[in-house]
Amino acid sequence: MENGAGNGVAVAAAAAWNFAPNEALLGLTALSVRGVLGRVKAGMVADGGGARPVVPMGHGDPSAFPCFRTAQEAVDAVAGALRSGEHNSYPTSVGLEPARRSIAKYLSRDLPYELSPDDIYLTSGCTQAIEIICSVLARPGANILLPRPGYLFYEARAAFNGMEARYFDLLPQKDWEVDIDCVQALADKNTIAMVIVNPGNPCGNVYSYEHLAEVAETAQKLGIFVITDEVYAHLTFGERKFVPMGVFGTVVPVFTLGSISKRWVVPGWRLGWIVTNDPNGVFQRTKVVDCIKSYLDISSDPPTFVQGAIPKLLENTKDEFFSKTVEILRETADICWEKLKDINSITCPSKPEGSMFVMVCESLHILFHDARHHEGFANGVRNFRDLLQVKLDLSCLQDIKDDMDFCCRLAKEELVVLLPGCAVGYKNWLRITFAIDPSSLEDGLDRLKSFCLRHSKPAI
Amino acid sequence: MENGAGNGVAVAAAAAWNFAPNEALLGLTALSVRGVLGRVKAGMVADGGGARPVVPMGHGDPSAFPCFRTAQEAVDAVAGALRSGEHNSYPTSVGLEPARRSIAKYLSRDLPYELSPDDIYLTSGCTQAIEIICSVLARPGANILLPRPGYLFYEARAAFNGMEARYFDLLPQKDWEVDIDCVQALADKNTIAMVIVNPGNPCGNVYSYEHLAEVAETAQKLGIFVITDEVYAHLTFGERKFVPMGVFGTVVPVFTLGSISKRWVVPGWRLGWIVTNDPNGVFQRTKVVDCIKSYLDISSDPPTFVQGAIPKLLENTKDEFFSKTVEILRETADICWEKLKDINSITCPSKPEGSMFVMVCESLHILFHDARHHEGFANGVRNFRDLLQVKLDLSCLQDIKDDMDFCCRLAKEELVVLLPGCAVGYKNWLRITFAIDPSSLEDGLDRLKSFCLRHSKPAI
Repeated sequence: MENGAGNGVAVAAAAAWNFAPNEALLGLTALSVRGVLGRVKAGMVADGGGARPVVPMGHGDPSAFPCFRTAQEAVDAVAGALRSGEHNSYPTSVGLEPARRSIAKYLSRDLPYELSPDDIYLTSGCTQAIEIICSVLARPGANILLPRPGYLFYEARAAFNGMEARYFDLLPQKDWEVDIDCVQALADKNTIAMVIVNPGNPCGNVYSYEHLAEVAETAQKLGIFVITDEVYAHLTFGERKFVPMGVFGTVVPVFTLGSISKRWVVPGWRLGWIVTNDPNGVFQRTKVVDCIKSYLDISSDPPTFVQGAIPKLLENTKDEFFSKTVEILRETADICWEKLKDINSITCPSKPEGSMFVMVCESLHILFHDARHHEGFANGVRNFRDLLQVKLDLSCLQDIKDDMDFCCRLAKEELVVLLPGCAVGYKNWLRITFAIDPSSLEDGLDRLKSFCLRHSKPAI
Repeated sequence: MENGAGNGVAVAAAAAWNFAPNEALLGLTALSVRGVLGRVKAGMVADGGGARPVVPMGHGDPSAFPCFRTAQEAVDAVAGALRSGEHNSYPTSVGLEPARRSIAKYLSRDLPYELSPDDIYLTSGCTQAIEIICSVLARPGANILLPRPGYLFYEARAAFNGMEARYFDLLPQKDWEVDIDCVQALADKNTIAMVIVNPGNPCGNVYSYEHLAEVAETAQKLGIFVITDEVYAHLTFGERKFVPMGVFGTVVPVFTLGSISKRWVVPGWRLGWIVTNDPNGVFQRTKVVDCIKSYLDISSDPPTFVQGAIPKLLENTKDEFFSKTVEILRETADICWEKLKDINSITCPSKPEGSMFVMVCESLHILFHDARHHEGFANGVRNFRDLLQVKLDLSCLQDIKDDMDFCCRLAKEELVVLLPGCAVGYKNWLRITFAIDPSSLEDGLDRLKSFCLRHSKPAI
């Protein structure tokens, strides 16, 4: 040992290594939610006495709060599958058949047709579902249409395989509906698909049946697939009920991405799915299905025993668990909405109706409300954002450079973590997660208010 | 609904969709282990009466056999972490700190230096570890050196990001050692890394300290990193003990890939790791570490509660469990070696000393043994394979076209599944997994013998 290693120490340090870092990769992560939250929290020094706990309103993960504890039936299902010893082996690449069959049945309840187990592909959470879809659809020269605000994760995954990301706007003045004109203007013959997120993350909106029909018809006309991220399915607490995009699977072939992470409040269990909602068999004919299977052959899988637990997990979880979760979300969304109204320097364009988030902007209070009644405003969000750019100079917060600066200082001064809009491609907005314990939420929003008051410019 | 959908049925079917399948992706899977085994098993009709069970000697997954049942302590650790409710949240992207700390401690036992938790990155099994390493190291124009026989999975992942795969030979006549001359001939200034698998899959070999030192010195001289796939670490049952490549981390920076899948016989639990064995800090300086972290920020993770279970799983599993597994493998390797000797049309170049596999070739029996004593044979495996190519025409098996044909017909006629060499880049060889219940193994090998006898050419 001494010989090789001792000699090597000097030489290894001096050797020239052929590696050059992938700068694009390094750049993408700087804008990932994880990366950005890491930077926000970097300057935060936890209160030694513990009198002021950190309020985590940056991440969509309420699982640590006792009131959001998952269903006992779900835990029992997974523990049972683990202890059975029957699920220690590698799974099949598409996922265990009983799990796929039960997910097909579970999702078909809300569809005008029956899904088959062969329409379901199990994934390591929705994250891997996105990775797989982006990898499968990508080819050099192709492009994919993504919502803004939205997630750079899709872009990162597309870019990794040479596919261009193009962003269409969501319209804050129209409950964050898709700007259909924008989609039509962006699409060309190399556009493969468009992505929607419903219930909306980061916006907290829920799309109406009619709007989804309009999206379907637009996509059909353009010859592009629809990818619908429905990880927050059924987490709605406003007027609108959740309608799965798969309802329009006969109009346009739809990939539905979902998981147990949010409805069961177990993001750490990492069990998601890709569903092909396509009664006309377009995905089969165009070999999309073969490509998915191929990619799965060279991909990691969700743990076999979690797959094995799925039938019991879906069957045994009681409606009471789901309604309790939705009730708490309704309560916290209300608290959030009411408390935000009280903060002058922050504006919330619409009350959240689903998911766990709301998007707010700083310093636009008066202008925004005025703008709503302004005819020209109907021209859409680009116009709106122009206003935003102008307005930033007139910010009612002093010393705050931008959304990142806002969040870093809020974290440092008040131990409250929010996600800066830059992480969802929407600079100078903030994403607030209200899916936390109600009393922590009140505390966090009070601290947010103090922070804003403390940093407000004196009235002129 | 009727409106949109009714209208849509016709139009969706008629619409031109912009998708074109990725032929390269479709092609790669045709050679993945999963894809190939799927084809081998496709023609197999299970025995209705159940008198003859299928003997699965194609896959490295003995977990379904009672004698390979995992340790109760491991099950208890995972069940405990699950039931605690403390691990339902998203993990951090590098993995939970206590898990990384305990893996660092576990691996440091066999190293001349201490690993830190920051050297450990948790992954969804070794599969995702390979995916991450290939994605991080890839850049267009770069190349990576892979062993042959070996796994196309590395190539698939490298190719996905535009990196070229080049194959160096393993030498069957030298216990499957790396052909160092071949590595030196292949490497150029765009070579980033070389891969070794130790204990060997598919070959069942175990590398000596001296050979690993030679690999390290070669890599250092060439300025390339070493990726060592040690998923079969400690599963050795011959003369040679397992030596981790990380021992040479001061000579050359080493990525060690591992998992609990094999030693704990739980491939379905999907918990693996990447370790940076690099006391000189080369990975830090060249930003490899930053790239890994960036990639992890946009990747799926192993389940949080499995991560949470790792400290107890590593601490509590008794040595008796490990020795029992190794004892059974020693027994089944012996059975395999002895029974194969009895099959005229199959040759096994060396007795397996580790992992769960052995590589055998067909129809070379006499020639192979002759060749071993032939001076020219020492010229290496290329020479050997030339002989193989010639010999195929003289095959002592009639009506068998190639390795794929051999395995398909064996599966169909005898319900015995072997992996054709084409799946590991080594045409007309076969990979046999002996990690199954001893009585099933004897049964499987007896059926293999019947099959070979039945298909032998009549003696001339």
